[in-house]
Amino acid sequence: MFGGIETGGTKTVCAVGADGAVEHRAQFPTGEDADALADRCAEFFAAHPVRSIGVGTFGPCDPDPGSATYGHILNTPKPGWSGVDLLGKLAARVDAPMVLTTDVTAAAIGEQRYGAGRGNQNLVYLTIGTGVGGGAIVDGRVLHGRTHPEMGHILMPDIATGGVCPYHGDCFEGLASGPAMAAREGRPAQEIPDDDPAWDLEARIVAAGLHSITCTLSPRCIIVGGGLGSRSALHTLLPESLSRSLAGYVPAPLLAAPGLGADAGVIGALTLAQDHSQG
Amino acid sequence: MFGGIETGGTKTVCAVGADGAVEHRAQFPTGEDADALADRCAEFFAAHPVRSIGVGTFGPCDPDPGSATYGHILNTPKPGWSGVDLLGKLAARVDAPMVLTTDVTAAAIGEQRYGAGRGNQNLVYLTIGTGVGGGAIVDGRVLHGRTHPEMGHILMPDIATGGVCPYHGDCFEGLASGPAMAAREGRPAQEIPDDDPAWDLEARIVAAGLHSITCTLSPRCIIVGGGLGSRSALHTLLPESLSRSLAGYVPAPLLAAPGLGADAGVIGALTLAQDHSQG
Repeated sequence: MFGGIETGGTKTVCAVGADGAVEHRAQFPTGEDADALADRCAEFFAAHPVRSIGVGTFGPCDPDPGSATYGHILNTPKPGWSGVDLLGKLAARVDAPMVLTTDVTAAAIGEQRYGAGRGNQNLVYLTIGTGVGGGAIVDGRVLHGRTHPEMGHILMPDIATGGVCPYHGDCFEGLASGPAMAAREGRPAQEIPDDDPAWDLEARIVAAGLHSITCTLSPRCIIVGGGLGSRSALHTLLPESLSRSLAGYVPAPLLAAPGLGADAGVIGALTLAQDHSQG
Repeated sequence: MFGGIETGGTKTVCAVGADGAVEHRAQFPTGEDADALADRCAEFFAAHPVRSIGVGTFGPCDPDPGSATYGHILNTPKPGWSGVDLLGKLAARVDAPMVLTTDVTAAAIGEQRYGAGRGNQNLVYLTIGTGVGGGAIVDGRVLHGRTHPEMGHILMPDIATGGVCPYHGDCFEGLASGPAMAAREGRPAQEIPDDDPAWDLEARIVAAGLHSITCTLSPRCIIVGGGLGSRSALHTLLPESLSRSLAGYVPAPLLAAPGLGADAGVIGALTLAQDHSQG
């Protein structure tokens, strides 16, 4: 059996399983105390021993095994987490080899192997919720690059204004995230019904982001997940919005909701562990 | 010895060499007649026999060796070239194994191996001239994805208007290419001196494109070449424009002009051939 840990911005999921199937899972708030979180993960894996553990974490983080700060959380506004050696804290408590990537990269792995992206060697997983983030598989391999993609921060055309990103204002995350939609519509996205015209604008915004990602990475498939990104109101409108934006110059990739639902990240994390153990 | 062919939008270069060094080269207009061009390439390689040939071509093209249309030019407004089986025409005339990619991907290979990007396993080569195009190396391997990147067509923030792309108007190519700058400034880029304030706006536009590419691919290094892209007026302003756009959220990649100058593509093409022959 293999282990997966997904440390998200608000909740953390631990799971044990193999071949894309989860046997046991536990979930707790990520919180502000990294030691307390590592303790809870250690308790879970003491009860469910595994051969190796994959970790998919919120970012920015350092996923480069060759780096001195491998497995650290980098500068983040998230209280308690800036500079934390997440992998070190876990390794000090759990006796199993570990491998770490970003939460969205883990979700891309999960979806590519066992979810809606099965069989696609070039795939992007995009989450739209409190923030916007993307992970990519290129020719069957994880894309990290220098650090890791920050697809939520690509720049956007003049479709909407009032973006909420403290760094870039009207970037993808600034315009498309849950808080952005809430600021624009005056109510949380959860309260906006599927037939509300607000989804037309949201779909055009998301399509603009997908357009630029498509022109840069040439994926065959983009999985759009996350709290807001999984809404069927969005998925209904997205293919036509994207086709219209690409204007026939580049073929649109297949768009899909996550086949693994909210478990894409943790299943991807344990798949990463299994791959790592089995070479 | 190995061969390289770079079929650009206006000119085609053939070269023979090895290990990044060119021994013989020839150059002719790409023209509208693919058979005539293939004849000229065949004459060159009859005089200079090689073990294998790499081809870097203008796009859109099909660089997937597993595809039925591998080596074909796809739909292009370029007269005489839409749907042409470029690789087939070359293979019918030259008795050497061939491998094909895009011109900008070939340039990325050349720069990564022998040019300004030496030692970088994650690199983007961007050309800005008549059009805008990009090629990428991810973890030392060429990025093709489903077809190949079309980085000139990513969408852009509201920095300038009046873009010239017939598909997307104000996309990266629509705003940053030579014809776009000429339309905006009322004279060709070649006639705009290095100290003209027009370069401030051009640098902000190019930086916006580089910003989105950086957030998607996380490259360590971006080489900016091409007729307009190699201008020192642009390179002087670009680092600060990009840093300002990224706003400290993501570290800026190293920016550089091509170390191989205009030979990046053909040297990359012959390097691809050499890699292919030597496994």
